[in-house]
Amino acid sequence: MSADQHATWVERDRARVWHGFTQMASYADNRPVMVERAEGRELIDVEGRRYLDAISSLWVITLGHRVPELDAAMRAQLARVAHSTLLGNGSTVVVELAEALAGVVPVEDARFLFASDGAAAVEQALKIAFQYWWNQGISNRTSYLALGDAYHGDTIGGLSVGAGGFGTDLFDPLRFRGVVRAPGYRSASWLDAALDALAANAGTLAAAVIEPLVQGAAGMHVASAEDVRRFGRACQDAGVLLICDEVATGFGRTGTLFASEQCQLRPDLLCLGKGLSGGYLPMSATAASGRVADAFLGDDLGPATLYHGHSFGGNALAAAVALRHLELIDDWDVLGNVAARATQLQVGLAALARHPAVAAVRACGLMAGVQLDAAVGGPRSGRRVCAAAVDEGVLLRPLGDVVVLMPILTSTAAEIDRILDVLQVALEAVSR
Amino acid sequence: MSADQHATWVERDRARVWHGFTQMASYADNRPVMVERAEGRELIDVEGRRYLDAISSLWVITLGHRVPELDAAMRAQLARVAHSTLLGNGSTVVVELAEALAGVVPVEDARFLFASDGAAAVEQALKIAFQYWWNQGISNRTSYLALGDAYHGDTIGGLSVGAGGFGTDLFDPLRFRGVVRAPGYRSASWLDAALDALAANAGTLAAAVIEPLVQGAAGMHVASAEDVRRFGRACQDAGVLLICDEVATGFGRTGTLFASEQCQLRPDLLCLGKGLSGGYLPMSATAASGRVADAFLGDDLGPATLYHGHSFGGNALAAAVALRHLELIDDWDVLGNVAARATQLQVGLAALARHPAVAAVRACGLMAGVQLDAAVGGPRSGRRVCAAAVDEGVLLRPLGDVVVLMPILTSTAAEIDRILDVLQVALEAVSR
Repeated sequence: MSADQHATWVERDRARVWHGFTQMASYADNRPVMVERAEGRELIDVEGRRYLDAISSLWVITLGHRVPELDAAMRAQLARVAHSTLLGNGSTVVVELAEALAGVVPVEDARFLFASDGAAAVEQALKIAFQYWWNQGISNRTSYLALGDAYHGDTIGGLSVGAGGFGTDLFDPLRFRGVVRAPGYRSASWLDAALDALAANAGTLAAAVIEPLVQGAAGMHVASAEDVRRFGRACQDAGVLLICDEVATGFGRTGTLFASEQCQLRPDLLCLGKGLSGGYLPMSATAASGRVADAFLGDDLGPATLYHGHSFGGNALAAAVALRHLELIDDWDVLGNVAARATQLQVGLAALARHPAVAAVRACGLMAGVQLDAAVGGPRSGRRVCAAAVDEGVLLRPLGDVVVLMPILTSTAAEIDRILDVLQVALEAVSR
Repeated sequence: MSADQHATWVERDRARVWHGFTQMASYADNRPVMVERAEGRELIDVEGRRYLDAISSLWVITLGHRVPELDAAMRAQLARVAHSTLLGNGSTVVVELAEALAGVVPVEDARFLFASDGAAAVEQALKIAFQYWWNQGISNRTSYLALGDAYHGDTIGGLSVGAGGFGTDLFDPLRFRGVVRAPGYRSASWLDAALDALAANAGTLAAAVIEPLVQGAAGMHVASAEDVRRFGRACQDAGVLLICDEVATGFGRTGTLFASEQCQLRPDLLCLGKGLSGGYLPMSATAASGRVADAFLGDDLGPATLYHGHSFGGNALAAAVALRHLELIDDWDVLGNVAARATQLQVGLAALARHPAVAAVRACGLMAGVQLDAAVGGPRSGRRVCAAAVDEGVLLRPLGDVVVLMPILTSTAAEIDRILDVLQVALEAVSR
């Protein structure tokens, strides 16, 4: 195929597809990769060019693309049923998935309410926390404590507990009130301020919502596990429900299956998405502790019921691949690989941190951010560094002036080296 | 297998899965169907019992379960790639799907922003409408006109434009303000009231949001196409963006591919979900007219950009099945079958309407609601009628005291007859 092939696809794409978080006037100029197929940890474009997927196709792919075992699980489920409703009815593969998840999530006696978009898992957690108090006749616990720089998805509920910025301030009139905001992890004093905010509002908070360990979308700001543990425990000690949003951090990304584990936390509500299906299919879930879920028991059709549900929640195909994915994480000792590769990545990043174009590096497990020095590279430096990396065959995508490194969890040592080498080359290109 | 098999699965299910819109204390008592597999238009439970799927697995299945052509499309895509990100990058199968959709949706020069949950498609439409004005420096168009009895999904934005009731009033503190409410289709004077509300607020409305022709979740309340046309045109004449939420009505359900067509409307924003993938996989989309989308063009990384996106938006597997699904709707003349079966269903319902337990019947295409007379059947009559139908091998699920009939679009004449016959038997059982 020719280079015309690429240009033709980009033009067709630009004409009809509205890409999320993307300025469509610049889409074509920003050299999009036009993915046609994939193999292992590589994406392959319409002209046969290969790109190492160093962003895990937006933080979702865990084991790789076209994993034979996951493909086989999906084909087997396809021969049974693709989808049936969970509204009032059951699906055996979803029961098996929920049981498997219950064995690994850091939630007491977990119950799972499934959805598809990660934002919906957050919305569910917010609504469950709100109604949990209402069901007990407690009418004054109607607010939430959330952190600065927080990102909890783009639906209005997620946006409401999310921090401002990220181009979302214009939607302030749609956000709900009653969010108590403490600083985010980038502040050295976030913990003290968050504990103060908790103490000042403990009697009126329905829940506190955090991204344990890493605020990813904020630019990979990392907290100490001990600080997160202290905050989470303080919430629970104060009788405030703790919501851990692990849509980004779940399923091995930070080195443990869930970041909450490193923080020795057992949240009342846990939000899952992205890696839940190995990144194959849209699936998200809200895990609620048995104590929380039991507050919704009551008369049939009565007011204690959670009147919330998504048509595709508990999709059988997604459940089948998610179930097999959990087994493979164990069988392949994925967490062992994450530990080794995370150490390698962090050593490499420490060296890169000395580059004049780099202001800071931050990492936790296989989530990393390289903060560029705008004084060296200019305001579009993140964009330019990633474009240079794509030219070298490594797919990166920035968050503003932060270059995000989010390797697939099964990456080899050679692949981590390649990502680091290409990033070095890209930084040179931009610094010239 | 034995009846113990069923009871064991139900108990395992109840212990770990939180079912949407379901009182879990009554879950086991309400005889859930435990689906293990499916064939055509039948679901098959863990004991091999077969159920005609008369709710299209909650209004999503269009062509049937285990459609060989859809299964083949998914297997073919599985051999290419399951998922890659649309954030800043392209995917050929998504381009093909968007082009195919653009050829059939009643939206001028349509652009497609994909998500997975239907509620997310509504949230996207609400945010796009809001920012559309903001991007043009118009700061006073910040409210929405919505109808009574409206259902637009369960996330906070969808809940805000949705009507109260459905067990959602407790969430009022989380709903955004600035929603102008006109009566729903059940009111004979809805149109006049809605036109008055529009006239009184035309200068401050960002958008009006409607379910064209049928308010489904409200209990299948049907408006005349002419009334909906007049309202939609009046919105657009007043410069107010028109959002048609066709998550439930789209893809042939009402007799045309989209209900907006019967109303001769070309909305500025169209919300799609459920049937988009044939009901196989979670996929939703917001279609925006070119005029609306172009208001978001501007500087790269600039404020005109829509900073919104879902990780799984444009999932390749879902796109592949959605693309093949569109072809099959044509190839199989599905709309021809819907027309014939809808006539048959409505004749049958007219006969059922004389049953003393029935207060009213309402239908549009293959969406129908049988309103029970609570004075005859009691408050749980919907539940009891559907349970009796399930005992007879036809899966139904009520909305309060409305029995919903939502046959798969490829249903045969014999299957429609069976649904009607079983409903008759179930009504007898409850009336005794």
